[in-house]
Amino acid sequence: MYRTHTCGELRLTDINKEVSLAGWVQTVRKFGSITFVDLRDRYGITQLLFSETLNAALDANPLGREYVLQVTGKVNERSSKNANIPTGEIEIVVSEFKILNKSAVPPFTIQDDTDGGDDIRMKYRFLDLRRNAVKKNLELRYQVNRSARNYLHENNFMDIETPFLIKSTPEGARDFVVPSRMNPGQFYALPQSPQTFKQLLMVSGYDRYYQVVKCFRDEDLRADRQPEFTQIDCEMAFVEQDDIINMFEGLVKRILKDVKGIDYTETLERMTWEDAMFTYGNDKPDIRFDMKVCNLQFPSHLFIGKEPEVSRELLSIPPLGGWGAETILAIAVPGCSEYSRKQTDELTEWVKRPQIGMKGLVFIKCNTDGTFKSSVDKFYTEDKLKAIAAAANANAGDLILILAGTEERTRKAISALRMEMAERLGMRKPDEFKLLWVIDFPLFEFALEDQDGGGAGRWVARHHPFTSPKPSDVDIMINNSPKVEDLDKYLEHPYANIKANAYDMVLNGNEVGGGSIRIYQRDLQEKMFAALGMDAEEQQHKFGFLLGAFEYGAPPHGGIAFGFDRLCAIIGGNETIRDFIAFPKNNAGRDVMLDAPSGIADKQFDELQIRLDLKG
Amino acid sequence: MYRTHTCGELRLTDINKEVSLAGWVQTVRKFGSITFVDLRDRYGITQLLFSETLNAALDANPLGREYVLQVTGKVNERSSKNANIPTGEIEIVVSEFKILNKSAVPPFTIQDDTDGGDDIRMKYRFLDLRRNAVKKNLELRYQVNRSARNYLHENNFMDIETPFLIKSTPEGARDFVVPSRMNPGQFYALPQSPQTFKQLLMVSGYDRYYQVVKCFRDEDLRADRQPEFTQIDCEMAFVEQDDIINMFEGLVKRILKDVKGIDYTETLERMTWEDAMFTYGNDKPDIRFDMKVCNLQFPSHLFIGKEPEVSRELLSIPPLGGWGAETILAIAVPGCSEYSRKQTDELTEWVKRPQIGMKGLVFIKCNTDGTFKSSVDKFYTEDKLKAIAAAANANAGDLILILAGTEERTRKAISALRMEMAERLGMRKPDEFKLLWVIDFPLFEFALEDQDGGGAGRWVARHHPFTSPKPSDVDIMINNSPKVEDLDKYLEHPYANIKANAYDMVLNGNEVGGGSIRIYQRDLQEKMFAALGMDAEEQQHKFGFLLGAFEYGAPPHGGIAFGFDRLCAIIGGNETIRDFIAFPKNNAGRDVMLDAPSGIADKQFDELQIRLDLKG
Repeated sequence: MYRTHTCGELRLTDINKEVSLAGWVQTVRKFGSITFVDLRDRYGITQLLFSETLNAALDANPLGREYVLQVTGKVNERSSKNANIPTGEIEIVVSEFKILNKSAVPPFTIQDDTDGGDDIRMKYRFLDLRRNAVKKNLELRYQVNRSARNYLHENNFMDIETPFLIKSTPEGARDFVVPSRMNPGQFYALPQSPQTFKQLLMVSGYDRYYQVVKCFRDEDLRADRQPEFTQIDCEMAFVEQDDIINMFEGLVKRILKDVKGIDYTETLERMTWEDAMFTYGNDKPDIRFDMKVCNLQFPSHLFIGKEPEVSRELLSIPPLGGWGAETILAIAVPGCSEYSRKQTDELTEWVKRPQIGMKGLVFIKCNTDGTFKSSVDKFYTEDKLKAIAAAANANAGDLILILAGTEERTRKAISALRMEMAERLGMRKPDEFKLLWVIDFPLFEFALEDQDGGGAGRWVARHHPFTSPKPSDVDIMINNSPKVEDLDKYLEHPYANIKANAYDMVLNGNEVGGGSIRIYQRDLQEKMFAALGMDAEEQQHKFGFLLGAFEYGAPPHGGIAFGFDRLCAIIGGNETIRDFIAFPKNNAGRDVMLDAPSGIADKQFDELQIRLDLKG
Repeated sequence: MYRTHTCGELRLTDINKEVSLAGWVQTVRKFGSITFVDLRDRYGITQLLFSETLNAALDANPLGREYVLQVTGKVNERSSKNANIPTGEIEIVVSEFKILNKSAVPPFTIQDDTDGGDDIRMKYRFLDLRRNAVKKNLELRYQVNRSARNYLHENNFMDIETPFLIKSTPEGARDFVVPSRMNPGQFYALPQSPQTFKQLLMVSGYDRYYQVVKCFRDEDLRADRQPEFTQIDCEMAFVEQDDIINMFEGLVKRILKDVKGIDYTETLERMTWEDAMFTYGNDKPDIRFDMKVCNLQFPSHLFIGKEPEVSRELLSIPPLGGWGAETILAIAVPGCSEYSRKQTDELTEWVKRPQIGMKGLVFIKCNTDGTFKSSVDKFYTEDKLKAIAAAANANAGDLILILAGTEERTRKAISALRMEMAERLGMRKPDEFKLLWVIDFPLFEFALEDQDGGGAGRWVARHHPFTSPKPSDVDIMINNSPKVEDLDKYLEHPYANIKANAYDMVLNGNEVGGGSIRIYQRDLQEKMFAALGMDAEEQQHKFGFLLGAFEYGAPPHGGIAFGFDRLCAIIGGNETIRDFIAFPKNNAGRDVMLDAPSGIADKQFDELQIRLDLKG
């Protein structure tokens, strides 16, 4: 036995106990003839006191940072207490010590504010993981995992493992594939999600399934994507959308309670996809703050029944009118009417960056004295500015920001600008949590350009091909051909208006979960595959097992999958998922610690009967 | 909402309640003008009564086996009760019903004793999973999972996910590899186990880690192997062998308690590897029954300090002596002295099968009247037979079976014969559980023939290259060269006697878990790699990250991994792991339901920059 206690455990009540501890040397401080050492383990830090009698032994075995040390000694009350740590009232007067292992000088300091850059910390991830900041993230991740499992268990869900070596059926994202040595010329694929398996389990009668499971997508990586990621994957049979929404609203509330001590008692708002797009410019709005989008002008066929918030006449004046914009959107940023010229110029540059892609920014300062000052003063009278300010719900002291351009880009831009301003104004508080359901997504998107090599000018599934249309829209889908005769008028095709029985859970402006009620009828599933351009042969080759299963008594069912990495990151008050993964990959999909991927041996190529075909 | 209750829930106390159920039609029975339907879901079966008034509706919508049905009706006390099912006292008098989905006639019956063969049940796995026998297995698997997690959680273990896309470092088994599109010409490997990651987590200070995790080995499959399998993987820091043994003995006892209601209070026996081999002929003995091996003759240098149980003189007589056997082993099979000639002939054929590979079988019947009758009567006097019987601890009524041949084969054969006889005599009771630790394994095996392409005449790690020698044997390892000058005398090399700090947990004759105390010193790890024939460059390429980590304060640590599939199978009273996996693969590594692996598209080859190189 190496230790009787951990380094986070001892208190004043343990005074005079003879104890053994083991851990890492955090600091060594010599004061005259005595030496203080902070000993660290997973549970905390305990101060060790080496008195004069150990000086010879210390000289023979000097201690260094990150040395692994085992000590025996007596618990003593400290004369100068440290109120910042739970063990701060005691110290161990060491009688014996043993260096269990030495350490080279670490390439960066093992502290909350480390001096190590990203690259070096990734290479020495095993040292980075020692830092309290990283440890807290992994502990939080485990708490979320545990909390989710407990809730699901109590609600009769069963964890059922689904296979990792499956069939390649690329839909949407690219599959990672695995050559099969025993079946030369053939490949397994790693699952992008256990989607079809969990549906089969519903057909099999398992009724409430969950899994915390790795998924794989071979996509070009953005900063917050990983080629392997974890889902809390769930499915239920004999349910409608409401049943799922209630069950999983409960799950996330339970996690917030268990992990953050938050009693989230309100029922979640359910916002339609259309309302979210109209009011926030995107389908995962952050509702911790208001700053809603003011729709000054937009294509009326896209938001049926919505009215622009000012007259078209008002907007026909240059520069807004001059830009010939399809869409004009505004936000009123609270308390920023006194922005300087430098600040507004900087914002203009910000929206003109390629990632945002706007031609310019119009602003109106709603001065606290009731007057207005705008970048369009020479075209707009005070009355007209006032009308826009009223439409934008702006108060005295606000700064109205107006963007204009094509519908999709402008809406995306105003949404990004809204988030940016909120960030700058400290309105995105990491310790405040606001949940939201977004519902009634469109079932299809129309790919005007080629996506995933499936060709241009075709319908693609917005969620995935297993999502069912709203019951009221099933007939529209069945009774119409998916063919789009005039690509310019695809929005007039009946399929453009079919709504899906799908729902996303949004937390603080991030999609943390998404799911749908599934198709469970063979004929409707075939119709869906056909709408996506899959002929009967391809359907049979890729999904014959699922279509087959639907012939043997498939129950109505639906489910949801939570992005576990992201959920943890947001609950941890952070949006970088990599910080919540023990051994993440970098943006090139590499594990720089392992130096993987890497070459393999000739023998492996021979056995797998493949070879390289590098394009150079 | 599709249902108010499940099909396993309603009781007499629910009489007269108006309820809705949904499930599958198990049976339809017409009695005159009324129809009984057994409706099945995950939770049970409830009888439905369709009275005369619904006949027209039933004629219009006839029910078939496995149809998905939703009914509303009133709970009624049954006139003829069924004591075999928990809902057997009630039935639902149906007022309304709706067929939610139809079913084709299943290719086999969905019953405990199904008429479906293995192949058809694998192809229609989603239907096989509906059978109660299979469902019970998966439920048990979930219970074991839940119980293990609870125990580990309560003992401060943290579930930390390790990556699946790692580096190929084939040691022992073959890796499955995954071509990297973003890093052309390079490959990830799927983990054979999270071994090095869990060790890094110990270096990082996480101290108690666990994971229920998929592992992958590309090996030619035996009946009880799967290319992907699940481990309960655990590691602890600052521990010695005793700490691990106590902790994980507790884990399995907890599982037996939670899942089977068994109070396993005895402390587990710890048997050395040598004793297990000597007394049972193998290193995972089934100790539910006795029938120990009697060592009549064996190579004395292999079992130092053990004595043969009869004199060499006695055994010099033909046929045992005539066979010139290195090793002669016997078991006394209780109560079988009256085996007929046909039965002993059949046993002789059994041991001569190629899988066993013996030349013959000698038997001695210990008759109940105290006389003996043997297959070697013409060579052995009654006195001599009596001496052997005494050595074999045989009682009147027993049948002594004797095998002779080379050491390894004979020991394997007597072990197999012991298990076979126990099986035939019903001594391997599926509801009796006997646990055992086997300890003190040899650290190395000597590969006289080539294994894994590493060449012949070299040491290989019996467990894996990270297992530490016993503290008392470290110096033997450090101070000797691994080189074996004379292959015939490899047993005399000091490495042959180094014992490992390794332990296996054995349950009912199956290894369910195995682990070791690890090497945590860079120099010893390098010595180990070198002993296995890895030069410095190869060490650095494959395991540089681990050797590097050992320089920065690696603590003493060790762990264990349980074969989750096998553990579940044995606790479930079955030894076929496939029956405890939702979607298993067949012996060719194929998922016949999915038809995977399969070909991939040209575009995938192009993107991955690989092509086929079929030798065929």
